[in-house]
Amino acid sequence: MESTARLETFSDGVFAIAATLLILEITLSGEGSVAHQLLAEWPSYAAYAISFLTLGIVWVNHHTVFTLIGRVDRTFLFINVVFLMIIAFSPFPTRVLAEHLREGSKAAAFAYGLTYTLMAVCYGALWFYAATNRRLLAADADLRMVSGISRSFAPGSLVYALATLSSLISADLAVVLYAGIALFYVFESSLFGRDG
Amino acid sequence: MESTARLETFSDGVFAIAATLLILEITLSGEGSVAHQLLAEWPSYAAYAISFLTLGIVWVNHHTVFTLIGRVDRTFLFINVVFLMIIAFSPFPTRVLAEHLREGSKAAAFAYGLTYTLMAVCYGALWFYAATNRRLLAADADLRMVSGISRSFAPGSLVYALATLSSLISADLAVVLYAGIALFYVFESSLFGRDG
Amino acid sequence: MESTARLETFSDGVFAIAATLLILEITLSGEGSVAHQLLAEWPSYAAYAISFLTLGIVWVNHHTVFTLIGRVDRTFLFINVVFLMIIAFSPFPTRVLAEHLREGSKAAAFAYGLTYTLMAVCYGALWFYAATNRRLLAADADLRMVSGISRSFAPGSLVYALATLSSLISADLAVVLYAGIALFYVFESSLFGRDG
Amino acid sequence: MESTARLETFSDGVFAIAATLLILEITLSGEGSVAHQLLAEWPSYAAYAISFLTLGIVWVNHHTVFTLIGRVDRTFLFINVVFLMIIAFSPFPTRVLAEHLREGSKAAAFAYGLTYTLMAVCYGALWFYAATNRRLLAADADLRMVSGISRSFAPGSLVYALATLSSLISADLAVVLYAGIALFYVFESSLFGRDG
Repeated sequence: MESTARLETFSDGVFAIAATLLILEITLSGEGSVAHQLLAEWPSYAAYAISFLTLGIVWVNHHTVFTLIGRVDRTFLFINVVFLMIIAFSPFPTRVLAEHLREGSKAAAFAYGLTYTLMAVCYGALWFYAATNRRLLAADADLRMVSGISRSFAPGSLVYALATLSSLISADLAVVLYAGIALFYVFESSLFGRDG
Repeated sequence: MESTARLETFSDGVFAIAATLLILEITLSGEGSVAHQLLAEWPSYAAYAISFLTLGIVWVNHHTVFTLIGRVDRTFLFINVVFLMIIAFSPFPTRVLAEHLREGSKAAAFAYGLTYTLMAVCYGALWFYAATNRRLLAADADLRMVSGISRSFAPGSLVYALATLSSLISADLAVVLYAGIALFYVFESSLFGRDG
Repeated sequence: MESTARLETFSDGVFAIAATLLILEITLSGEGSVAHQLLAEWPSYAAYAISFLTLGIVWVNHHTVFTLIGRVDRTFLFINVVFLMIIAFSPFPTRVLAEHLREGSKAAAFAYGLTYTLMAVCYGALWFYAATNRRLLAADADLRMVSGISRSFAPGSLVYALATLSSLISADLAVVLYAGIALFYVFESSLFGRDG
Repeated sequence: MESTARLETFSDGVFAIAATLLILEITLSGEGSVAHQLLAEWPSYAAYAISFLTLGIVWVNHHTVFTLIGRVDRTFLFINVVFLMIIAFSPFPTRVLAEHLREGSKAAAFAYGLTYTLMAVCYGALWFYAATNRRLLAADADLRMVSGISRSFAPGSLVYALATLSSLISADLAVVLYAGIALFYVFESSLFGRDG
């Protein structure tokens, strides 16, 4: 078993790159004035902001969670690799959503939500594996905080799954829900206890 | 509350990637000799250099500022995520400016300046949140340096906002001002006190 | 001779970027409904998943191996640069494979396998250089673990080379073998001893 | 003045990203069989390998040099930002060279060499600024090694400048020289003293 320093460097790298790659996908249409083209890209800006904030929230929580974890084993490393695989995949559905949001594509909204639901489920698996293996927790980990985080994971995945299903009714509804979930977590800073 | 080590790794990653992605946007037109095509890309080189230097300056200051900050809380982390969202967004207006600088597009110059003004405002918010929350400052932070940095933030945002507004008169004027601001900060190395 | 901290940061950066760039290559065809286009990209998803998992496994092992290495010299650094050159190259054959998997291109499957075989050989060279230069090993390195890792490297390269050669018979067979090798290593978590 | 830890993280990030982005530029022509297309890209592979090895060598030396530097000031940080600006620019001339190597474009070979010459000059400036400011050197820096590195910088820049000028005679000659310089440094591992 090993300390978490290098795991965090690698994870931070994938988060930072996935978040930064999101912008590469935005391109102007080339039709009409530059001002018009810039304004016409609003679905891209919306998709970029929702995705960046969501990845940012996940990263902030990853940050909080890792202060409670003292050691990792190979199983934990592999779950983390699968989790990062989904993080690194997320620029793709974001681009598809940005390109097809104006036409109200339910498939694009569903693919986007499915990716983030899988991310939430996989992140939950990562956490529960650590939380139920006491030897992975830091010696000074606050066990009440550990239970609090465990309680908060199940509703997170469920809420994402429901928002994803809502895309089958309306793509716009689903996107509003995705944005709402992101904003909820940004403002609900007491999620993992005061000033986690 | 937690130490700043991992926050700095993640931030450095976003800075490094955003700065490096800038080059991906430059492509030759394919018309005329290679030498001619290489020379014709001067607006791209100018936009690349201004953006890279500006990001470099912001990174150097971020570096100086973080030596004064000892701990972060969740609110600080979220302001930083929004700040990084703007940093990661900056390759997009840079590319738009490079593509439309020769035709003197005011919209492209305005979008570029607006992005950097928002970056300055958001960076100021990050700093003032830390500077007015003593418990976030490092125990050995020099309070005179803290006040000095606080005084330097307001004019920075204002100067960027004015340069942005100048784009409504002339795109070329605005670009000269953006370059001038970047060069001013490069040479004004005593900004935050001698050898900050 | 120097410690391994900075080498690991640089290596983690290349791993994280190469793994994350894999997704940039996936684009929709633009023909048919969005749902149809998303489903039609399954060879891209398969190639992405196999490559990400393989890079993830190599990274996890790199992580384990470096806990046994205490110092590096310039020769080690250069072998590592060549190794990282192959890691950073891997998104290219992955993209070629994704684009030509449906048509069963043996050349694409061969190029993919050749890249990963060279990666395995180069990684083996890196390891054997360290394992046979005792002064590079950490003072507290478990010599039984060192021998165990040495024994596991030879079959790894051989298995990849055989899977690569199988592409000359059938591209599909080779891809199944590449996926099988990745999954074998994911589940065979006791490869380098229990919970390495 | 501050320690070099964060500077190294940021620098490593730029090196890692610039090196990894090199591969994004390679694309198949789409004409002929996949095997034929893969083989026809040899100028891209050559340009990729020369650039990656060169960046790798610069990184290894950066690594060695920083073990001798104990502290940095703002001037040093800004020289480093300009140096990294050239590192991050290098994927562009690499791509141009790869695209125009077969037609023997002197302009492409010159632009490539000019970039690497500027990189060498800027890296020299970074080193001499530190070497002539004793307070930046680590307390335990070996002054004989410092003088040795100083002596090796001047010929490095000169050799690159001459190779660049040779491109005006023949692009192929220049590329052979660029490759030769990279290989010379790879094998001349005693450059900065034995096992620096």
